[in-house]
Formats: sequence, C-alpha cells, structure tokens
Amino acid sequence: MTTDKRGLTYSDAGVDIAAGNALVERIKPHAARTARPGTMDALGGFGALFDPRAAGFADPVLVAATDGVGTKLRVAIESAAAGLGGLDGVGIDLVAMCVNDLVCQGAEPLFFLDYFATGKLDVAEAEIVVSGIAEGCASAGCALIGGETAEMPGMYAKGDFDLAGFAVGAMERGGALPRDVAAGDVLLGLASDGLHSNGFSLVRRVVERAGLGWDAAAPFADGPLGPALLTPTRLYVRAVLDAMRAGGLHAAAHITGGGLTENLPRVLPDGMGARIDLGAWRLPPVFTWLGEAGGLDEAELLRTFNAGIGMVLVVAPEVAEVRAAELTAAGETVVRLGHVEAGQGVSYEGRLA
Amino acid sequence: MTTDKRGLTYSDAGVDIAAGNALVERIKPHAARTARPGTMDALGGFGALFDPRAAGFADPVLVAATDGVGTKLRVAIESAAAGLGGLDGVGIDLVAMCVNDLVCQGAEPLFFLDYFATGKLDVAEAEIVVSGIAEGCASAGCALIGGETAEMPGMYAKGDFDLAGFAVGAMERGGALPRDVAAGDVLLGLASDGLHSNGFSLVRRVVERAGLGWDAAAPFADGPLGPALLTPTRLYVRAVLDAMRAGGLHAAAHITGGGLTENLPRVLPDGMGARIDLGAWRLPPVFTWLGEAGGLDEAELLRTFNAGIGMVLVVAPEVAEVRAAELTAAGETVVRLGHVEAGQGVSYEGRLA
Repeated sequence: MTTDKRGLTYSDAGVDIAAGNALVERIKPHAARTARPGTMDALGGFGALFDPRAAGFADPVLVAATDGVGTKLRVAIESAAAGLGGLDGVGIDLVAMCVNDLVCQGAEPLFFLDYFATGKLDVAEAEIVVSGIAEGCASAGCALIGGETAEMPGMYAKGDFDLAGFAVGAMERGGALPRDVAAGDVLLGLASDGLHSNGFSLVRRVVERAGLGWDAAAPFADGPLGPALLTPTRLYVRAVLDAMRAGGLHAAAHITGGGLTENLPRVLPDGMGARIDLGAWRLPPVFTWLGEAGGLDEAELLRTFNAGIGMVLVVAPEVAEVRAAELTAAGETVVRLGHVEAGQGVSYEGRLA
Repeated sequence: MTTDKRGLTYSDAGVDIAAGNALVERIKPHAARTARPGTMDALGGFGALFDPRAAGFADPVLVAATDGVGTKLRVAIESAAAGLGGLDGVGIDLVAMCVNDLVCQGAEPLFFLDYFATGKLDVAEAEIVVSGIAEGCASAGCALIGGETAEMPGMYAKGDFDLAGFAVGAMERGGALPRDVAAGDVLLGLASDGLHSNGFSLVRRVVERAGLGWDAAAPFADGPLGPALLTPTRLYVRAVLDAMRAGGLHAAAHITGGGLTENLPRVLPDGMGARIDLGAWRLPPVFTWLGEAGGLDEAELLRTFNAGIGMVLVVAPEVAEVRAAELTAAGETVVRLGHVEAGQGVSYEGRLA
C-alpha cells in the first residue's frame, strides 16, 4: 500500500489497457482466417453478428455448448513455464470440447467465442493460445467471432490463466440427433489422439505419485512427459457431419469425462444399452501407463478417460461397413466396438489390452 | 504425496463428481423458471437446443456476446467470506454484462450459457451464484439453457471461482443498431445502479489506499463497504427493446470499462462526436468518494467508471421527449445528456458534481 498522494489510474491497479488493445490487434488476423459464410461485420462491436441464412440454413434450430479445458491447462502452463512448450494446443482443445459436442446433437458448428482470464496479461502467451483457438475453429469450419480477455489481478497466480469456450451451431429443423436408435445398431468408435481434455486432475496425481516432472522422459512415448500428455483433442466435426449426410447415422457420443461408460448411454433411448468388446482395439500406451502407475482398475479407466476412443457413432447395421470404409478413407481410425441391445448402460466383454 | 499402493480414483484427485451432480440437480429448478418461447429439450444433452422460429423470428440474424464479472468477483468473494453476503448479485452482473451488449446491436436476448470454474466445488455457494444467473436471465427474458461447472484443483485458491457468460440474441434481418445516427440526435442517459461490473481493480486499490475493510462503514452509503460496492448491474434490456420498438432509436451504448469516453464513440459513425453536459446529472456518491479517496481526476473517472450513466440511447430529436417520458414511466431515471455533432469522440462541457 502506498501512502503518497499521487492519484491512481487504471494501470496503477494492475490492468494494462494498452496490453489488452495490443492483443486485440494481434488476434485480428487469426480470427480473420476463420471467416465462413454467415460471418458479418458489426458496427459498434457490442456483439458479434452471424447470419444463419447466409450459412445455408432455411429454418435453423440452434445448438449451443460451453466447455473449458479443465486442469489440462495446468499441465500446459507448467510445461510451457519449464520451456517445453504446451500452450499452442490448448486452444484446439477448447474448440474441440465444444464443437465435438455440437455435432452429437446433429448440428454444424457455426461460430465460437472465447473467454480468456488471467492475472496479468502476457500478450505473446495469449496470442499463442488464441492462435490455437483460431486454428481449431478453422479446422472445425466455425468462425471465431468474438471473445473476452479479462485481466484480473489477484484472481490468478502469476502465469496462470483460464479458458472457456462457447460454440453455436445449427441444423435444419427435424435434423436433430439422436434419432431412430434401435437394437442391432452398430457402434463405430473413432480413435482418439490421446488423453484429449478430461481426467487431468487424476493424471496429475498419477504423475506426482510416480515422482516425475513434466521434463522427465515420458514412460509411454518419445520425448518429455508434459508435451506427451498434451496432444490436442481430435476434432470429429467433419467425420460426424459427413457420416450424417451420407445416411444411417442414428447418434454420436463424444467421449469426455465419464468415458465410454457414462457418455455412450446419454444418446441411447430408455431400455437400450450398449455392448462393447474391449478386445476390439488396443489400449493406447498412455492409458496403459496411467492405469499401471496410478493403480487404476479397468472400470475406473473406462469411466475417467476415453481409453483410445474419442467419438462413438451409432449407425444402422446395413450401412456400418460402408460408413466405416468412408471414415477410414477420410483419415479416421475406425473400430467396430459392438452394438446396441435391449438393456441399459454399457456392458463390456473381454479385457482392455 | 502418498506412497501406499492403493489405486487412485477421480475423487482422490480432488474432483468430486457427486458434488457436480448434486449441483446439476439444484440448478434445474432455477434454469426451468427462465424457459421462454424457443426453449427446447434436447435428447442426449451434448448441447442445448433453441428454436428461433418458435421465439418469433422469421429471418433472424444472430448476435452473440461473452463477458465476465472481472475483479468485482474478488470483492464479492471476500465480502461473502467475511459474512457480509455478496454472491447473490454476481450472477445478475454476469447476465447484464452480456445482454446489455446484445441490445446495443438491436438484438433481443434469447438464451444464455454460463461457465463456473472453481478449485473445490462448494455446492451451496455455486447454487447461490447460479440462482443469480437465473434471476438475471428471467429479468432479461432469456433462457438459461446450459452451462459448465469446472472443478479445477490447483487453479483457483480456496473459496475462489471465476465466471464467464455467453448470450445469444436475434433480430429480424435489417434491424441492426446503430443506424441513421445523425448530427442533432439526442443522447438520453439511463441512470446506473452503482458501479456495475467495471473498474473494480481500481476500486480495490482505492479501498486499500483508504485502509478500509469490506466490513467498514461505507463512506458513501448506509451499511458495510463491500455490499455497498456490489449493487448488481442494471438490466437495460426491456428499456432498450421498448424504445427500439417505439421508434426513433438510432443507437445504444452500454457504458462499461472505458466509461462514456470510450463506449459512446463506438456507436457513432466516422466524423460524428458526442457533446455531453456534465452538469446534466449528479454524480452518485460512490463515484464522488472513489474520485476523492483515489485522487482520480474527472477524465480518469469518465473513462473508467459509468459515472452514474449505465446506458446511452441515441434518439431522433423529434421523439426524444416522448421516448424519455415513456422510459421514465417504465422506471428508468432518464438524463438528457447532450447531442451528436460533427467531430469525434466525446466533448464534455461543465463539470461533474
């Protein structure tokens, strides 16, 4: 506390308006490359405009989702602070966590806004993060039309920040998923790219228990541990939308916190369950290591992590093979996991290996 | 760090899924009372659905805004921790910061999603906050259709949390504000209810400099200082929408960080400025005190705080009197601040008093 008689200004209070304005200028080119049909310029700029008709929708129903990156951010922040990198992917995670949800409702992602909050704004660091958000948006075909940068001295520790994302998509009326899910429908799993953005509080405990730093050699991959855990969440937008347009897609489940065990039942009607053969795919090494180092049993793994399957498509049996072939051709790794049957929840057979 | 050989579970990692589920159940009745035409139930729940046609829009253009509450949250958290209350209003602030922006673009707020992040979820505390969000949504006529509660051990200090809000509104095509702003247009100021949600990093410095705690008697009002600073941001949604429908409204500017000085020019065309008579209204006591205790000059006050004016409407001169009378009848305190003229920025005459 100062006792001198100089007056205070907002920058004395730890809020650097010039840094905020500098960031806005640096973000502009990143946001600009996410423009898509429907993007509009707004006078005044109190809100961001979007035109669903210009985006191709005649009678749209809107779908909205919000999510964060969770404590994966801590691993990213600490890895970056250790000089290992790690901030460039969290923006992709943020977008993916939202838009992978939207497509599960049958919606095409249209636009995205981000909230970036920190104790003291580091313009270069923030630009890396927002650049990742823009990269995710461009890959998902949605426009980054707005955002908020909050500098909150006293709320976040030095170097820390939090992120929230908001995505809006649309479908033509009547196009919502899930629909027509029936016993015998085939469950096609799309491989994940790693841990994605869930379960990181547990990951951090396992790493702590193993006595490893983020710069230690990853026990399950080449290179240091921090970056090896930070592979960005895979974007399934184009895969799901293509499968939906091709036909026979009855539902899609984004496998986030809660794993296959909790996420797959969310898209099944009452009285229907899923049967999954755990021998149908190989558990990726990161999960094997987490299970061993953390003493996690199989059930805990399957309801905390994606276990190698980031998205499940529920498809009519007669088109399962052709849909799987198309998805494979488009670059997905597709696993025939099992099928829908009378019952409830997920019944597993075989063992993860 | 433990060295025993028990396996870890997600709750060992500091994430309490039961608390999260309990909060979801507690939020449901609050969210339910914000339902409005357009609200839809979604199967699966990976995203929240909204029907713009059912909300009355034939050819909607969408507007989106995101914002937080800034370091007003710190004052609220610390006041609540001191037993003074303070959490019940921040949800209203969060909604107001977003929807007051939407109406400035000419949009009717339709739906809202919130992001609530904390280190350790306190269900009762979170319910107070979300209840305030629902109250704000209900007052603004927008539906609370989704949200994310993030428990992030290690990111937030004990008892701390952050909030982000995301609002989407719509207008019929061609209805965007600002439009037709011209020299001679009258500036009608709508009184604020206090500090609203900006400038709190500076407020905290001033309070610290004055050597006051949140439980000290407020020098500018009855009761303790903390709660006296926390009056929720006023919702101007109905006032602005009513004025827009009545006719002659050319623009509206939400007076947030940057004050009248920076926000009003955002809605004026190139070559137009605003002339404001600072003697047209009385500076509310909270700002007088902040100015004196912080040694802030008038210019600093006018570009950090709302200075008693939370929203400015730019109206055609021939309807200014009748619009002002209608707004007054609807419960607003209306000040004829000045007018639009050739120039740029805001030119002040007279003195704040």
